[in-house]
Amino acid sequence: MAVSRQKLNNIQSEAAERLESCIQSFGLTEEEQEAIRAFNSLKTVKKGTLLLKEGDFFSSCFYILKGCVRQYYLVDGEEKTTFFYTEDQSISSSLGPNSQIPSKFYLECTEDTSLTITTYEEERDLYKRFPRLESFCRATAEQQLSISQEMFATFKMSSPEERYLNILKTRPELIHRVPQYQLASFLGIKPESLSRIRKRISINHC
Amino acid sequence: MAVSRQKLNNIQSEAAERLESCIQSFGLTEEEQEAIRAFNSLKTVKKGTLLLKEGDFFSSCFYILKGCVRQYYLVDGEEKTTFFYTEDQSISSSLGPNSQIPSKFYLECTEDTSLTITTYEEERDLYKRFPRLESFCRATAEQQLSISQEMFATFKMSSPEERYLNILKTRPELIHRVPQYQLASFLGIKPESLSRIRKRISINHC
Repeated sequence: MAVSRQKLNNIQSEAAERLESCIQSFGLTEEEQEAIRAFNSLKTVKKGTLLLKEGDFFSSCFYILKGCVRQYYLVDGEEKTTFFYTEDQSISSSLGPNSQIPSKFYLECTEDTSLTITTYEEERDLYKRFPRLESFCRATAEQQLSISQEMFATFKMSSPEERYLNILKTRPELIHRVPQYQLASFLGIKPESLSRIRKRISINHC
Repeated sequence: MAVSRQKLNNIQSEAAERLESCIQSFGLTEEEQEAIRAFNSLKTVKKGTLLLKEGDFFSSCFYILKGCVRQYYLVDGEEKTTFFYTEDQSISSSLGPNSQIPSKFYLECTEDTSLTITTYEEERDLYKRFPRLESFCRATAEQQLSISQEMFATFKMSSPEERYLNILKTRPELIHRVPQYQLASFLGIKPESLSRIRKRISINHC
């Protein structure tokens, strides 16, 4: 238990350093930086923690500093993994702050994970006090939207093997961080197809 | 030629009415509404017009009021259709206003199309004068991001037949507006697979 607590403390310290370095990189004034620090929204949670369940109302924004969060849907009792969020990726609701529509998916930490959790109310307050922050978040959201659209387009145009090669190129660390059956689902293929692709690639590279 | 000009004029008038109704629905002040109207950024272009080519620098935001814009990539000489933008959808660059990275895709109007074209400089100017507009655009971008992520997740989890059924449910008008081979590509399947799916569905519904 003590070892596990020590491990979480180490992750939290590493995440706090990353957060501080993020805050300093945004080009904000000292006052704006202090306002963000004052939220003290950094949390470290254990592997297996569910951040969100199907049916929950999703009213926060998560920003991953260290760790991995899996998004999955439960379809006829089967978990369908659709995304992995890792360092420097954020997750927010599609439905806005006042939505009465419950979440259709789950968010599960597949590793001990450090993340900031900001509610919509806190965000709104911060934007009111520091309009420049809202400007920054507007540009970030637009950029993330187009990156997401480009990822979707690339996925549509790719064969299963090309999708795997693309992950090897763009997020190589993911291959070793998550179970293969979840990775297969994330790539939109069956686990046995992923296994065949990996064998073929390893033979071609011998 | 006169008939074609008349047709474009009719589309432009219809789009201008839609735009006015959009502007009025945002809950803006009269001054904010006037500022948007003053841009006069509504354009109507003919079917076949390329709004963007591979290699171009993309520094505007398009908002479709009437018509249809196809996004496609040219891969080994073959057009791969990845998205159709129709009424009330917007297209902006992934790479931000100052990007020196050229576009990887094409945007082609598959119908006579009315759209607003706003440059990043115009947007920046508008936000500076009316910060509330930036607030509105930040919320819209975040909402669109999550909708895009949900569409991507649904696509991954669906079989080709489920993808077609989903389009029938969510964007039924698209089926009749675009050629079947482009629709197949958009659904990430071969034209002959789409043809088989359509036959199967039509038999099951007889």
